[in-house]
Amino acid sequence: MGSPDLAKLSLNTATVKAQWTLAQAIEGCARHGIAGIAPWRDKLAEMGLKAARRAIRAHGLAVTGLCRGGFFTASDWLSDNRRAIEEAHELGARCLVMVVGGLPEGSKDLVRARERVRECLALLAPEARAAGVPLAIEPLHPMQAPDRACVNTLEQALDLCEALGEGVGVAVDVYHVWWDPKLAEQIARAGRRRLLAFHLCDWRVPTRDTLNDRAMMGDGVIDLPRIRGWMEAAGYAGFHEVEIFSERDWWQRDPDEVLAVMKERYLRFC
Amino acid sequence: MGSPDLAKLSLNTATVKAQWTLAQAIEGCARHGIAGIAPWRDKLAEMGLKAARRAIRAHGLAVTGLCRGGFFTASDWLSDNRRAIEEAHELGARCLVMVVGGLPEGSKDLVRARERVRECLALLAPEARAAGVPLAIEPLHPMQAPDRACVNTLEQALDLCEALGEGVGVAVDVYHVWWDPKLAEQIARAGRRRLLAFHLCDWRVPTRDTLNDRAMMGDGVIDLPRIRGWMEAAGYAGFHEVEIFSERDWWQRDPDEVLAVMKERYLRFC
Repeated sequence: MGSPDLAKLSLNTATVKAQWTLAQAIEGCARHGIAGIAPWRDKLAEMGLKAARRAIRAHGLAVTGLCRGGFFTASDWLSDNRRAIEEAHELGARCLVMVVGGLPEGSKDLVRARERVRECLALLAPEARAAGVPLAIEPLHPMQAPDRACVNTLEQALDLCEALGEGVGVAVDVYHVWWDPKLAEQIARAGRRRLLAFHLCDWRVPTRDTLNDRAMMGDGVIDLPRIRGWMEAAGYAGFHEVEIFSERDWWQRDPDEVLAVMKERYLRFC
Repeated sequence: MGSPDLAKLSLNTATVKAQWTLAQAIEGCARHGIAGIAPWRDKLAEMGLKAARRAIRAHGLAVTGLCRGGFFTASDWLSDNRRAIEEAHELGARCLVMVVGGLPEGSKDLVRARERVRECLALLAPEARAAGVPLAIEPLHPMQAPDRACVNTLEQALDLCEALGEGVGVAVDVYHVWWDPKLAEQIARAGRRRLLAFHLCDWRVPTRDTLNDRAMMGDGVIDLPRIRGWMEAAGYAGFHEVEIFSERDWWQRDPDEVLAVMKERYLRFC
């Protein structure tokens, strides 16, 4: 396994979402020599798709993913996911990240919620394939199962991929999967074709909030080089995208400082 | 699947740990007609093993588990676990619950931590067998992997059991495993022989603390009757033990109220 390669670093805009618009994040990446960006759709809507595409191209940035499709528990899930596929196509995103949603309001039926995820993905997959947009199913941490995603392990996500066929893969976010005893095995099973994205951050001890308390690489307990090694051994050659939700720390800081620290930590701890 | 059976209800003393000594919890179970109790060892030490055994027998309570052995990250793990086995033997506990510990201080090596758990259990298992004390490995929620237990799925726990042989099984706590897409399959795999304990509570949305914010049955999103059904279909016929860590709610209430609500919720929601 080689050293971390700055040319593969990407900024997921959630990392500076409290401070910057998408236009500012694009400028920030250019200023800091970060070659990849993964926008969130709320920021994209705010900037406008055409303006975003123009600015991203002007700076030669790769769009390492669009966040996000999914949330099949929402009433407008179908139209919203169709728009997301279209946006990902327009941006030339390497994938559309799918956060599938948790339990429907008032329901405790996790088995049924998971069946529904498969049905919704089966409906969308052909449309995404036709648009040339790979769908990246993101397994989320089990603590986020009820309200964000009922796909909670890489094994489960890959079982879905196999049922869905071509054009569907996974987004591996260390925050969500680092604890999994089958992680190495399942990354190997996924292989290059299914590994569509790799997200970095760290796991803080103690974790004070189940959603917005992620740590910067090096400030937590995740063995990041080991997981990157598993990804690369499986053939993943894409970007390394930093996605940090951090209400109490990184969202409070100067965003130029966040990007500078992120680069330095990437080289030291990933 | 039949209705919940009050004769199978057990109180894990953690549920009232802020309010009651072990002596008071034993009296409380007797007063409320709860036939099982699972003491924690700090409370047991405070009361004294002989006095506890005497009081438990006087009221005819079953000891559905002793909490807890494990924590192989502690320097005195061997002597402490030997004492725990001896105490479980003296109390006639149906199992000694093993919470195996997380990462050693300063380490990120989860793979090695898990190897060490297997080694420590392999050393203890023959001693526990000789003492007639079944060891119940408890997989803990992945959010507790770094600091409490690096055994995080039932599948992983059962793989350990198979490596360790007779006299070792699992404690299934709905709080830790409810999200697992392989839960039904792994409970069936465990079967009667390996299913040593069944712990009840509920998962609160949102969860405000990763350790001490469990909900009373009925106040969360876990489909408790379904999981009990899987347990019973696999042959489990033991007690249903209520274990609720709840800093903000149940530890603040009158403990007689807690037991009364617990009985009522058990019959309605489990």
